[in-house]
Amino acid sequence: MIRFFGGRVMTLANGIETQDIEVWTEGSKIVFVGKPKAEELDGKVFEREYDLKGNLLMPSFKNAHTHSAMTFLRSYADDMPLQDWLFKQIFPMEAKLDGEKVYWLTKLAILEYLTTGCTAAFDMYFELDDYVKACIESGFRSVLCGAVSGDKSNLERLENNYLKYNNVDPLISFMLGFHAEYTCEKELMEGVGKLAAKYKAPVAMHNSETAKEVRECIEKYGMTPTELFDSFGIFDFGGAGFHCVHMSDKDLEIFKNKGVWAVHCAGSNVKLASGIAPIVKMQDMGINIAIGTDGPASNNCLDMFREMFLMTGLQKIACDDASACPADSVLKAATVGSARAMGLSDCDIIAEGKQADLIVIDLFQPNMQPLNNIGKNLVYSGSKQNVKLTMCAGKVLYEDGEFRIGEEPAVIYKKSNEIIESMKD
Amino acid sequence: MIRFFGGRVMTLANGIETQDIEVWTEGSKIVFVGKPKAEELDGKVFEREYDLKGNLLMPSFKNAHTHSAMTFLRSYADDMPLQDWLFKQIFPMEAKLDGEKVYWLTKLAILEYLTTGCTAAFDMYFELDDYVKACIESGFRSVLCGAVSGDKSNLERLENNYLKYNNVDPLISFMLGFHAEYTCEKELMEGVGKLAAKYKAPVAMHNSETAKEVRECIEKYGMTPTELFDSFGIFDFGGAGFHCVHMSDKDLEIFKNKGVWAVHCAGSNVKLASGIAPIVKMQDMGINIAIGTDGPASNNCLDMFREMFLMTGLQKIACDDASACPADSVLKAATVGSARAMGLSDCDIIAEGKQADLIVIDLFQPNMQPLNNIGKNLVYSGSKQNVKLTMCAGKVLYEDGEFRIGEEPAVIYKKSNEIIESMKD
Repeated sequence: MIRFFGGRVMTLANGIETQDIEVWTEGSKIVFVGKPKAEELDGKVFEREYDLKGNLLMPSFKNAHTHSAMTFLRSYADDMPLQDWLFKQIFPMEAKLDGEKVYWLTKLAILEYLTTGCTAAFDMYFELDDYVKACIESGFRSVLCGAVSGDKSNLERLENNYLKYNNVDPLISFMLGFHAEYTCEKELMEGVGKLAAKYKAPVAMHNSETAKEVRECIEKYGMTPTELFDSFGIFDFGGAGFHCVHMSDKDLEIFKNKGVWAVHCAGSNVKLASGIAPIVKMQDMGINIAIGTDGPASNNCLDMFREMFLMTGLQKIACDDASACPADSVLKAATVGSARAMGLSDCDIIAEGKQADLIVIDLFQPNMQPLNNIGKNLVYSGSKQNVKLTMCAGKVLYEDGEFRIGEEPAVIYKKSNEIIESMKD
Repeated sequence: MIRFFGGRVMTLANGIETQDIEVWTEGSKIVFVGKPKAEELDGKVFEREYDLKGNLLMPSFKNAHTHSAMTFLRSYADDMPLQDWLFKQIFPMEAKLDGEKVYWLTKLAILEYLTTGCTAAFDMYFELDDYVKACIESGFRSVLCGAVSGDKSNLERLENNYLKYNNVDPLISFMLGFHAEYTCEKELMEGVGKLAAKYKAPVAMHNSETAKEVRECIEKYGMTPTELFDSFGIFDFGGAGFHCVHMSDKDLEIFKNKGVWAVHCAGSNVKLASGIAPIVKMQDMGINIAIGTDGPASNNCLDMFREMFLMTGLQKIACDDASACPADSVLKAATVGSARAMGLSDCDIIAEGKQADLIVIDLFQPNMQPLNNIGKNLVYSGSKQNVKLTMCAGKVLYEDGEFRIGEEPAVIYKKSNEIIESMKD
């Protein structure tokens, strides 16, 4: 058992206030939350007693949309028009990937997730065996998102992956999904809708990221992507849309009625000039909101703190209202919201029986002082610099700048540089 | 003498490329930049030899607009409409400040500047003796900006401060300035124009931060703030405008023709819903651009990395162009640009004879890998986490998370919390 004591705990079970309580973990789970009585502590032997020394213990962040292995393209192709970026740089380089490369590039991403206090990624990519191996070896949690595209012949693979990766390891799960409307034939999307019905399962995909995507979908089908997906029954058991920048009122109604999560990717949306998602409108309607970074080729970092500031900052600008999208809603989206969007409802808050996916935030750094409001400090001032400890499923994977994922960072950096160099013609 | 060797050096003298060279400092200055010959090293005794181990040495960031002592209001009043924020929260609290409070609150800000690799602040506030004391004791550079408002009776104080604080310490200088059009009477601004002529000196002020400010100025004077200031000769020897969000074409022409610096405060502008400054238009016209954080009540942190990403991200969105405002222009604005806007032309780049205001960036963190493009990595992925060392005027003030400013951070945090608590009714 590990005992966290001597600090502030933000359980996120309700608001963003903090409490002077203890948290104990055993194995992968939280087993005690509260103020122990003297007799409860008496004779109790802990594997480790972590004195928070006034710092903050809270649920970890979860990254609800990413393509982890795209670390190799970080700062490789920036400041370019979107189409050139995608077709001249990204796609040709991705064609050169293989399983071993994905394995190392995923480990690089995991290092970065840990530095930002993130313990789970909702990942959409390929070479899944190698991706999963990198996650399990590192002790990092991941929800794989079906990434099929093209024609209906890919449905079998999607179903097989769904069955396979939901039974491979407690850290790994798989959600039905497909890449996006503009990369999938109609029959494939119809087939995904049938799989959703067969397994009573949610479905996730890129949705309405750019104005072009929505316009062309309407030209082709007479419907927005959201309407189209809904017509195939894809959202009948919920799911998630990544980006959701260009959403009609009808689209939002569908999200609301079907309980679909909008996964906000603010950093990517500004960097690729996709637009500003209507987050405040969604919040007002009661639509579920999560936060993702998107892949490191489009962001370029995997920093949940930057995403949080961007989420509220962009809404304040877009709504011309400094009170829009308050800090508590942002903090909840990045933690509880993202966990639930990924189907990780046992990793969302600090409560007995939940998974011990926790972080310690250093409050004794200048950007967190004075302690007027810890929740607002996190959203408006927080930085990777403040992450002292990241625990996933009860195991400490990152502490005081040191990684414990079974592989030296230096080896991962060397491999990553070798990989990108080998791919340049 | 201190010798930096074994890494990459980005001098920023021209582009953002890095070189495999050494940098030596002596006293407050850079005394050697290049590859030393064997005989130059022979028998040379260095006070310290800093092995960069492949990391990056570059000029420090400079924060070209801030109100340092406002740290006490960090996360004290957020998510509020601008007018309520200013009149109900900020102004009443500021009225309770005194010199000792400003002293401690400034030290808190200096700690944070150092963590983000910033060695100089262009500060506009009051209780200048106490502010200056905090900077000098810490070894931190500052340019004070005249902050007068109200009627012309304040001109004498402005002139006295100009003469006094330009001769107090090598780390301190003072630029003529006033708060803003909307807080100053006409005669005061006219008087500042005369002082500019008398001393052939640049002048800085808040300029066109909000649409309301510009609209009301036009109603009152029939001119925009920029036109009004120019009509008083205020820009005849250059200067700087803080924010510059709502600028007409004529305003931009004045900035261009008079060589006035536009100090971009992206974080504050989104958080207070002020708008997005026309940075790309300014860049296309050749207007000088610098970066500031604004004060910690409006941002809420003093993070030059976040400001850099926001600068380019907001332009990409506003221009609907993912290639807008490329990384090199942003990196230069935050370093060379800010230094020059502050009149610190001897602190801008790495070159022999320049001040040794330098930082070491840890490239062996996951967010900096692989090393496809270090400049783009800094702007798109950089974080406070990457700042290994901050040197101001040849003295190391921050290294590997430890501060060397002559005061323990714990004392500063305690004082800061006591100050804000004592001010709450």
